[in-house]
Amino acid sequence: MSFADRHIGPSVHEQAKMLAECGYDSLDALVDAAIPAAIRDPRELDLPPAASEAEALAELRALAAKNRPMTQMIGLGFHDTITPAVIRRNVLESPAWYTAYTPYQPEISQGRLEALLTFQTMVSGLTGLDVANASLLDESTAVVEAVLLMRRISRARSQRVVVDAECLPQTVAVLRTRAEATGIEIDVRDLATGLPDEFFGVVVQYPGASGVVRDREFHQSVGEAAKRAGALCTVAADLLALTMIVPPGELGADIAVGTTQRFGVPLGYGGPHAGYIAVRSGLERSLPGRLVGVSTDAEGRPAYRLALQTREQHIRREKATSNICTAQVLPAVLAAMYAVYHGPDGLRGIAERVHGLAAGFAAALRDGGVEVVHDTFFDTVLARVPGRAAEVIAEARRAGINLGRVDDDHVRIACDELSTLDIMGAVLRAFGLPDRGEPGSSTLPSGVARTSAFLTHEVFHAHRSETAMLRYLRRLSDQDYALDRGMIPLGSCTMKLNAAAEMEPVSWPGFAGLHPFAPAEDAAGYLELISGLNTWLAEVTGYDQVSLQPNAGSQGELAGLLAIRAYHRANGQSERDVCLIPSSAHGTNAASAVLAGMRVVVVACDSDGNVDLSDLRSKVDEHGERLAAAMVTYPSTHGVYENDIADLARIVHERGGQVYVDGANLNALLGLAKPGEFGGDVSHLNLHKTFCIPHGGGGPGVGPVAVRAHLAPYLPNHPAFAQAGPDTGVGPVAAAPFGSASILPISWAYIRMMGAAGLTRATKVAVLAANYIAARLAPHYPVLYSGRNGLVAHECILDLRALTKRTGVTVDDVAKRLVDYGFHAPTMSFPVAGTLMVEPTESEDVAEIDRFCEAMISIRREIDEVADGRWPVERSPLRGAPHTAEALTGDWDAPYDRKTAVYPDGVSPKAKYWPPVRRIDAARGDRNLVCSCPPLSDYAGS
Amino acid sequence: MSFADRHIGPSVHEQAKMLAECGYDSLDALVDAAIPAAIRDPRELDLPPAASEAEALAELRALAAKNRPMTQMIGLGFHDTITPAVIRRNVLESPAWYTAYTPYQPEISQGRLEALLTFQTMVSGLTGLDVANASLLDESTAVVEAVLLMRRISRARSQRVVVDAECLPQTVAVLRTRAEATGIEIDVRDLATGLPDEFFGVVVQYPGASGVVRDREFHQSVGEAAKRAGALCTVAADLLALTMIVPPGELGADIAVGTTQRFGVPLGYGGPHAGYIAVRSGLERSLPGRLVGVSTDAEGRPAYRLALQTREQHIRREKATSNICTAQVLPAVLAAMYAVYHGPDGLRGIAERVHGLAAGFAAALRDGGVEVVHDTFFDTVLARVPGRAAEVIAEARRAGINLGRVDDDHVRIACDELSTLDIMGAVLRAFGLPDRGEPGSSTLPSGVARTSAFLTHEVFHAHRSETAMLRYLRRLSDQDYALDRGMIPLGSCTMKLNAAAEMEPVSWPGFAGLHPFAPAEDAAGYLELISGLNTWLAEVTGYDQVSLQPNAGSQGELAGLLAIRAYHRANGQSERDVCLIPSSAHGTNAASAVLAGMRVVVVACDSDGNVDLSDLRSKVDEHGERLAAAMVTYPSTHGVYENDIADLARIVHERGGQVYVDGANLNALLGLAKPGEFGGDVSHLNLHKTFCIPHGGGGPGVGPVAVRAHLAPYLPNHPAFAQAGPDTGVGPVAAAPFGSASILPISWAYIRMMGAAGLTRATKVAVLAANYIAARLAPHYPVLYSGRNGLVAHECILDLRALTKRTGVTVDDVAKRLVDYGFHAPTMSFPVAGTLMVEPTESEDVAEIDRFCEAMISIRREIDEVADGRWPVERSPLRGAPHTAEALTGDWDAPYDRKTAVYPDGVSPKAKYWPPVRRIDAARGDRNLVCSCPPLSDYAGS
Repeated sequence: MSFADRHIGPSVHEQAKMLAECGYDSLDALVDAAIPAAIRDPRELDLPPAASEAEALAELRALAAKNRPMTQMIGLGFHDTITPAVIRRNVLESPAWYTAYTPYQPEISQGRLEALLTFQTMVSGLTGLDVANASLLDESTAVVEAVLLMRRISRARSQRVVVDAECLPQTVAVLRTRAEATGIEIDVRDLATGLPDEFFGVVVQYPGASGVVRDREFHQSVGEAAKRAGALCTVAADLLALTMIVPPGELGADIAVGTTQRFGVPLGYGGPHAGYIAVRSGLERSLPGRLVGVSTDAEGRPAYRLALQTREQHIRREKATSNICTAQVLPAVLAAMYAVYHGPDGLRGIAERVHGLAAGFAAALRDGGVEVVHDTFFDTVLARVPGRAAEVIAEARRAGINLGRVDDDHVRIACDELSTLDIMGAVLRAFGLPDRGEPGSSTLPSGVARTSAFLTHEVFHAHRSETAMLRYLRRLSDQDYALDRGMIPLGSCTMKLNAAAEMEPVSWPGFAGLHPFAPAEDAAGYLELISGLNTWLAEVTGYDQVSLQPNAGSQGELAGLLAIRAYHRANGQSERDVCLIPSSAHGTNAASAVLAGMRVVVVACDSDGNVDLSDLRSKVDEHGERLAAAMVTYPSTHGVYENDIADLARIVHERGGQVYVDGANLNALLGLAKPGEFGGDVSHLNLHKTFCIPHGGGGPGVGPVAVRAHLAPYLPNHPAFAQAGPDTGVGPVAAAPFGSASILPISWAYIRMMGAAGLTRATKVAVLAANYIAARLAPHYPVLYSGRNGLVAHECILDLRALTKRTGVTVDDVAKRLVDYGFHAPTMSFPVAGTLMVEPTESEDVAEIDRFCEAMISIRREIDEVADGRWPVERSPLRGAPHTAEALTGDWDAPYDRKTAVYPDGVSPKAKYWPPVRRIDAARGDRNLVCSCPPLSDYAGS
Repeated sequence: MSFADRHIGPSVHEQAKMLAECGYDSLDALVDAAIPAAIRDPRELDLPPAASEAEALAELRALAAKNRPMTQMIGLGFHDTITPAVIRRNVLESPAWYTAYTPYQPEISQGRLEALLTFQTMVSGLTGLDVANASLLDESTAVVEAVLLMRRISRARSQRVVVDAECLPQTVAVLRTRAEATGIEIDVRDLATGLPDEFFGVVVQYPGASGVVRDREFHQSVGEAAKRAGALCTVAADLLALTMIVPPGELGADIAVGTTQRFGVPLGYGGPHAGYIAVRSGLERSLPGRLVGVSTDAEGRPAYRLALQTREQHIRREKATSNICTAQVLPAVLAAMYAVYHGPDGLRGIAERVHGLAAGFAAALRDGGVEVVHDTFFDTVLARVPGRAAEVIAEARRAGINLGRVDDDHVRIACDELSTLDIMGAVLRAFGLPDRGEPGSSTLPSGVARTSAFLTHEVFHAHRSETAMLRYLRRLSDQDYALDRGMIPLGSCTMKLNAAAEMEPVSWPGFAGLHPFAPAEDAAGYLELISGLNTWLAEVTGYDQVSLQPNAGSQGELAGLLAIRAYHRANGQSERDVCLIPSSAHGTNAASAVLAGMRVVVVACDSDGNVDLSDLRSKVDEHGERLAAAMVTYPSTHGVYENDIADLARIVHERGGQVYVDGANLNALLGLAKPGEFGGDVSHLNLHKTFCIPHGGGGPGVGPVAVRAHLAPYLPNHPAFAQAGPDTGVGPVAAAPFGSASILPISWAYIRMMGAAGLTRATKVAVLAANYIAARLAPHYPVLYSGRNGLVAHECILDLRALTKRTGVTVDDVAKRLVDYGFHAPTMSFPVAGTLMVEPTESEDVAEIDRFCEAMISIRREIDEVADGRWPVERSPLRGAPHTAEALTGDWDAPYDRKTAVYPDGVSPKAKYWPPVRRIDAARGDRNLVCSCPPLSDYAGS
C-alpha cells in the first residue's frame, strides 16, 4: 500500500459503498457533478512521483544532514535551550498533544487548558504583571499587538510610538511593516537621550538587543515621561533574565511581551515558538489572542475554558483590534512544562549559570585588552574590536560557533543554557585571547536585582522527578480528546491525519538546532526544502510565488492584503482602500483587512448562501476607484462550490480590484482546481489544514501567502536574510525569515509522499465523505446549503434551528452530547448561528464516519424524545451532557438512566472517552475573570 | 538539577521526612544499619563523572555515527524491514507500552494481552498450527525449546535429535551449547540423504539457510521417517515466506519455530526480536513460555489472561522443562501490529515483491554465466563463484551492501522488504554483471505454493489507514496500567524510571540498522559501547569479565551455570553436578540448574527467612565431591540483607563448590557492596531491572553474566563473531553475538548519566523507600522478614495470612482492590504464599509512596469492615474489585455504594484509571483453552 492509501481513510471498497449512498457510481462522476467545470484544471499536478514513507524519511535525513547546527551565540531573542527528553517525547512527539484542536470545546480540553493556564501563570509571575494570555505568535508580532493595544488605551492624541533603539532589529522591522498600514508613526531612539512630549506608547527592550541591562533610574525616567504624555509603557523582556532582574511589573510597565522560546523550545531555524503578552490589571479585557480562564462546571467544580471570546476577531470582525486567531499552544505547553520541570529555583539556577559565564567571559575580554561596551548585562556581551568583527566571527565559526555581527567593529556574544566554560574558552581564542576558564560574578546594575518571588504555585514544585513529570503529562493529555481517540469533524478546520512519518523530522537535531539568523551555508538543507515546498505550493495553487514567512493563517492573510495595498500604491492608486467581503466570510478576513489599512464593505449573500453578485456589482460600482480588493473563500464558508467565482473575479478585476481567495478550504480543491487560475491574485494557505501540520491543540500554524507575478514584488522579506523575500517587499510579518521553519518538513513530507495522484485522490475522497454524511444525515437534519446537483463540497452544514425552536435543544446541547458518544463536536454556529458544520476530511474511514452518523441519528431520536415530552429539555441527556464517570456515583434523579447517559446507543465501554468535567458555565468565567492557576485547595474533593 | 536528581524520586527534603519515619537521621545512618559491614565496599565506584542528559545523548549520537548501517543482504534469519512510523512512534517510543510490566494482573493488561493474542493468532495462522505462544527469546533458543519439547513428548527412547544441515548456523551452535548439558545428541545431516532409525525429533529449516525451498516430497519423506521412529518434527520457518509457501502445519509438522523480526522489528544488531513457537493441537499444555488465553470476567464478558501458568518454571521449579520466564512482548507487539497494519494481502504483496526481486536477480546471474546453486528459493539466492566470494563481497561493500559469505566459493544474497531493483543491480555489478533491471517470475517448487487462507480475523483487516491504526494502538494502551500512570510496586521486579533520554537512542537508525553478522568495522560504535558497558558492569559488580549475550535473566543464569559446569569439567571434576538452592529461591534458579545439567538440592531457610547455614553445611557435607555450586540471591528473595553471606560462600568454596549470586536484587547493592567481592564467583544481572531497560510489558530483557577470572574462559561466545566471547567458551546461548544489542544504549546511558555518586545514592534511596513503607505499613500489616536492626533491604513483605484466615480476604482481593485505588499490585505470594512483596524503588517520590501507603491503610480498614461483619467477604468491595465504569451503570445491589467502589478514600476522579474488565476467572480459561482471537461477535454488547 502506498502512503496515500494509508492517509486516505476509506478503501476503494468503502468508497464504493459511500458513492452508492450518494447516488454516484464513481468518484469522478461525483466530483464532476459537484465542481463547476469552468474552474477545473484537468492537468495532473506537476510534482515528483510519490515517495514511500521510508524514501521520504531518507530524503529528509539527507536534507537535515545538509544543515549545520552550530553552537549558536547570535542572540537577538533566539537562544539555544535544552528540551528535557521527557517533555520532547511526551509532548512534542505525542499525538495526544499535537493532534488536538483549539480548546473551543473546553469540557474535552481540560488538559491543555490546564497547561495553558500554567503558561499564563508562569508569564504573569515572571513579568510581575497581573494577567497573561495563552501566547502570541512570536516576540515581534507580540510587540505589534502591544503597540496596537497601547494606541487603543492611551489618552494621548498622538499616533506616535517611541521605540527603544535597543529593540531587536527584527521587531523594529515588523513594527514598521505593520505601522505603515495602520497609520502609526515609529520613533526609534536612544531612550537615554530623552522622550518626545507626545506619543501614545513606548517600547523598551529589557535587556537590550546589545545585551545591556540599564539601571532602575533609566526605567523610572522612561516611565515618568510616558506618564506625562498619557502614554503606556511596554517592556519586551527576556523571561530567563527576569528570574534575576526586577520584572516589568515592578518597573511600572503596563504591558510586557516577549518570547518563551528559550524555555525548552528548539530554535528550529526561527519557529514555531510561543510569544507572550502580559498586562497590568485593567487591561485584561483588551488583551489580543487567546486567554484561558477558570470557571465552574455544572456540578460546581473548577473547570477551565477560553475566556472573553466576545472580544476576539471572529466575533468582532471589522471592529476587531487584532487579527490574531490562534495561539502557539504546543510551544507554549513545552515552555510551561519546562518551567514546571525546573521550577523557580531551577530556572534561576540556569540564569545564574548563564550570567556567570557571560560575566567571566567579559572579564576575560577586558583582561585581554578587548573593550566590552556595556558594564551591565545579563547573558549577552557586546565586544568592540575595531575592524576585526568579521575576523573574530570567522575564527569562531571555525570552532563551530556562530557569534553575532553588529557592524565591522562590534561582535555580540549571547550565552545560553548550552554554554559551557569550554565554549567560552573557544570564543576567547577566536578573539585571540587565552581561555580564562572560570565564570565571573554578577554584573547586574544596582537596584535591578530581582527580590520578589515567582512561580510559587504548587504546579511549579510538584513534578520535579522525571517519573512525576511523565505522569503529569500523561494525566493532562488523558483528559483531552484529540485525533488519536476519534474523529474531529470540524467544518472549515480540516482535522485530517498528521502522519507519524511527517512528524518525526521535526525533532531531529538537524532541523531543531538552527538559529534563524545563522549564515545561509549553515541552512543549506532548510533552504533546499523551503525552495522545494515553495515550488510545489505554487504548482498546486496556480500562483507564481509563495512566501512561507507568515506563521499563522491570519498573518498570511495580512501579508496578502499588504501586498495588494503595496501594489496599488506602487501604481499610484493609494486611494484604493475598500475591501469587499461577503457576509459569510470568516471574521478574521475583515480584521486582517482593517489591519492592512483597508475599509471593509460587506457584500450580501443570497438565500442559497452564495455571494450575491448583484450586490457585489453595486458595491463595486459604488466604490469604483476606491476598490482595493474583494476577499472570498472558495469553496465558500458555506461549504459549497459557487458557480460564479469566475464572474466575481472578472467584475472585480474590471474595476481595478484585486481578488483575494482565502485558501482555508483548499482541501476541496487540491489537484482539481487552482485559485491562481480561476481568478485569484493572491491566496493564503493553511499548512495546518490541507497540508497536515497538526493543530497542536491550538497552534502552531503556518499561513504561506501565494501570489500571481504582479504581486510578487510585494511579498514579505526580512532584514536578516536577503533570500527570504524580494528587495521591494513589504517588510517582515514575523520575527524569523521563514516563520515557523521547523514544521515545514511536515508539509514537505506530505506532498512528497502523496504525489500528484495521491493529493488529487485525497481531495476527491474528502468531497465524497462530506457528501456521504450529508446524504446519510439529511433525513434527520436539514442540510442548509448545497451547490450544483445538490452536492456540497468538503463539508456540510446541518441546520438545527427548526429543531431548536421546536424543542429548545440547542447546537450546544448536541455538541456536548456528542462527547458522550465519543466525538468532538463539529463547528458550532459558524458560518450560520444555530447550525453545525461537519467536515470529515479524507482521512476518516467509513467505520468512523458511520459511527458519527449513527451518533447523530441517535441524538436526533433523543431530540424527538424531548419533542414528544418524555424528557423536559432541561432534564434531558442532551442538556445534561457531557456526563462524567463521577456523575454516575452520586444520586441519580434524572429521567434517563445512567447507561443512557454515558453509553448511549452504540458506545462501546472499551473505547469510552471520559470527559473530566461536565458542562462549563461560560458566562460565570467571564464575569469573574481568573486567568492563573487557582490554589489546589479549590479542587478539594474533585 | 542533575540527571540523578530527576531519576531519584524523593528530594532531599522528602528523604528527611522518610528518614524520620524510619527513625534515622541520615541516609548513611540508615544504610549503615541495614547492610552488614562485612560486605560493604567503601570505595567510590570507578566510573566516568556523570554526564547530563544532553551530554550523554551527544555521546550516544557520536557512537551511533560510528556504526555503518549498510544495505543488509546477509540473511540467516535476520532481514531488514520497515517499521511503519505510526507503530514506531506509538508503540516502540510510547511509555504506555514500554513501561508496562508482564501481564500477571490481567485486568489491567487487556491491551497488551489483546496485542499478544493477535501475535498468537498471526503465528498460528501463518504456520498452519493450532496454538502459538506469546513469543520466545529468538529463533535459535526457540529451536532449543522445540527440541526439549520433542524429547519430552516423543515415544522414542533415543536421545538423538536430527538437525537439518540447512539449519541456521547460529541455531546449530546454540543447540550444541544446550544439548551438551542436557544429554542430547545432535546429528546434523543432509536430510535428503535419509534419516537414522532412532531419534526423538528432527528439525527442518524452511526455507533452508542457503535459501533453498525443497519440494513437498522432501518434507513428506522427512515426516514419514519421523513417524517411523516415533519422533516429532519441528520446522523452523520464515514467516514472510509462509505467506507464499505451504505452512508447516500442512506439511505435517508438530512444531513450528522461528523469528518474527522481519515483521517490522529493526535488526538492531541482533535483537531484541520475538521468537515464536507454535504446536499442533495436543501439545499446547507442553508449550514453553507465556501463553495468552481467553477467559471471562466476573460479568461474563470475554477477557484475556496468561493461561496455564502452573506449567511455568516459577511454579515447577526443578521439575520445570524450560527455564524461560519471559516473552519478548514489545517486539512481539511490533510484529503483531505490523501484520495488523499490512493484513494478509499486504504481507503477501511484500513477499511476492521480495521473491520477484530474488528470482529476477538469479535469472540475471545465470544469464551472466554465474551458477545459481538452488533452482527453488524464496528470498535468498546462493551463487557459486569459485575462488571469487571474497572479491564479490568486497565489491558489494564498496556499493554499501553486505552480502553473506558461505565459503571461498559461495555467496549468499538475501532480499528483503527494503530491496529494490537498484540494489539488485548494484549486487549484479559486484558480480561483474550488467543490471538486468526487472523482477523474475516465481521459482517456487511445485506443490509448495500456499493455497490456504491466513490472517482472516477482523483485526487484520480493520485498521488499515494510519488514522485507524493510531487509534487502535491508543485504545489498546489506554486499557493498560503502566509506569506512566502510577507506581508499580512489584517486589523483586524493580519497576523504576525508564528515562526518555535513555530510550531515545534505541530507534536511531545508527543503532537500529545493523545486521548482527555484519563485519566488525560496521559496528565500531556498538563495539565501543559494549566494551564500555562491560567494563562498567564489571566495576559495579566486582567481577572480572562480563558477557552481554544472554537476552534474558534466565539465559544469563543458564550461561553462568554452564560456565561453572565447564570449569569443573576442565578441572577434571565432571562429577560435580549438585546445585544447592535455598527454598526461598526464585523457581527459575532451579529450572536453569536442571537445564545446565545439574541436580538441584534444596537448602532450608530458618524462621527469619535466612538460609539455614547448618542445613547448608550438612548438604555440603552430604554431597561433598559432587558439589558443583550453591545459588543464592542477595539480598535474599525475602528482601533482607543476610548477615551470613560471606560464611555461606566460604563453606561452599571450601568444598570446591562455586558460588552463584543471583543479581536479581542488585538494586539494593549497587555502589555499596559487590557480589564479586563478598563471595560470588558468578552472577547474572537484570539490565531490565537495576539498569533501567523497560520491562516492555513482559520483555525484552537483558541478562548479562558476570564472572570472576577463573570462570571467564567459559563465558558464551559466538561462531559468527570472534570478539563476542572467549575461544574456550561454552558456545552461544542466543542467536546473536551480543543478544539484544539495540537496547544496551539504555543501560549505558543510565550509568553514564548517574555516575558513581548517583548510582550509590539511588541504592540508598531505594533502601530508604522500602523501609519507609515497612515503617508506615507495619501497624496495619505485619512485615514478614527483616534483617539487621529490624530493617529490610529494598523491598518488604506484607504478611496477610492471619488476616486472610480471620476474614477470608485474600492477597488476590487486596491486589485487585488496589486497582480501584489506582495502583498496580505488589508481587503476590512470592516468595511466600499469602503475602505481598512491595518494592518502591528509588524513582517514586514521596507523594506517590504516601498515596500507596494510604491506599493500603484504607484497604486495611475495609478488611476490618469485613472482619466486623459489615460486609460479607463475598459481597465486599475487596472481592468485587476491580470495578469498571460500566459496572456503575447497572443495577447496584452491593452493600457498599458506587463511590466506595470506584473512588475509595483519596482517589481523585481526575486521575482515575479505569480497568476495562472485572475480576477474571482464571480456572475457566485454563479449562477451556482459547489462544487465538475470538470472533468479534463474542464481544457483542461489551
